[in-house]
Amino acid sequence: MKILITSGGTSEAIDQVRSITNHATGSLGKIMAEKYLAKELEVTLVTTKTAVKPEPQLGLTIVEITDVASLMETLEQLVPKHDVMIHSMAVSDYSPVYMTSLDEVKASPNIDNLLEKTNAEGKISSTDDYQVLFLKKTPKVISFIKQWNPAIQLIGFKLLVNVTKEELFQVARASLIHNQADYILANDLADIGPERHGAYLVDHEHSYSAQAKEEIADIILEKVLEKRR
Amino acid sequence: MKILITSGGTSEAIDQVRSITNHATGSLGKIMAEKYLAKELEVTLVTTKTAVKPEPQLGLTIVEITDVASLMETLEQLVPKHDVMIHSMAVSDYSPVYMTSLDEVKASPNIDNLLEKTNAEGKISSTDDYQVLFLKKTPKVISFIKQWNPAIQLIGFKLLVNVTKEELFQVARASLIHNQADYILANDLADIGPERHGAYLVDHEHSYSAQAKEEIADIILEKVLEKRR
Repeated sequence: MKILITSGGTSEAIDQVRSITNHATGSLGKIMAEKYLAKELEVTLVTTKTAVKPEPQLGLTIVEITDVASLMETLEQLVPKHDVMIHSMAVSDYSPVYMTSLDEVKASPNIDNLLEKTNAEGKISSTDDYQVLFLKKTPKVISFIKQWNPAIQLIGFKLLVNVTKEELFQVARASLIHNQADYILANDLADIGPERHGAYLVDHEHSYSAQAKEEIADIILEKVLEKRR
Repeated sequence: MKILITSGGTSEAIDQVRSITNHATGSLGKIMAEKYLAKELEVTLVTTKTAVKPEPQLGLTIVEITDVASLMETLEQLVPKHDVMIHSMAVSDYSPVYMTSLDEVKASPNIDNLLEKTNAEGKISSTDDYQVLFLKKTPKVISFIKQWNPAIQLIGFKLLVNVTKEELFQVARASLIHNQADYILANDLADIGPERHGAYLVDHEHSYSAQAKEEIADIILEKVLEKRR
């Protein structure tokens, strides 16, 4: 059984010196990879330069990506070659299009015209008190997975911040349907600390709770193996 | 002689899961700290969680910061206690104020009103095709150093991208005057690679070139010691 895990967070460049980054240490991805490798499963870990990673070892392939575009390109190649995908990476929702001064925005008769502009300079410099950054929605990577490989078992992730358990489950189950996922690991940033990581693995009817990253890794593998039987 | 070095890049939070980060690995700061410690100088390294750092050792104090506000607070305490400051950190020029949909911007009769808004939610969510992020200029940290300690020797850094040597020197010397720095280390991203780091240490009349991070570390210390004699 070949497992594809994504971990860490993507970064979208504003210019050559700045970017918008989604925070993610990669620690859950590392723990999952290590646990599954210990069970002699093959693991491909798609992650970022700054994310924590397992030591190089037999059965483990690590592929580094940066932004959503490079993630898409990488996954399109890898997804058809795997049986399971655990998509724990924090993926940027929006990507920078154009950054300018507040004055240019105010002076623009039609703001839509600014969406056609791009910054030519390597380092956007300004002396203005305010700047305005226009961002465009990135493709929803998770929605492509079952198109690329209808047979893959897909475990998606949904991270919200300070919501009720009801809202968390509702959003997770919407993602389950929308992305044809087999499970969604639903978690709230308020339940994640250095020593704990509260989360629920949900499908259409069930939910399984976990209190730590090790438990999350175990419950995901348990449910994946159950489905394969 | 007590040397204060800043390294790495600051991050400004957009919300609890995203931030704008200035790229900087911290490797030059690490090399400078190690070289100066080897000469039995005392070093305080102000840096970030993700930056590379020297091993803990006698004479070295490491202080971690995140954003410009935490950098300001930290330096205001530390600058008066040091003889030399080498400010190689990549500091964010702008910090997020408010993120919203393009539709809200278009519908706003006065864009200035949006600058008074803030995002209450922990994770800004949107289904819009375009989002707009308003950013406000951060305080210029380097301009405060001589106010906090008029006697400190200040070495500032100026990183540009794809400019002529003439423009680089012009901008560096403007910074030298404006911030009452003793030297500015002027460099262009196009001259920085895995194996090389082209740079010029400039004052009002002179410039000294270096081709690698080790050379930059050496020339800075050489000039600092010359001025102290």
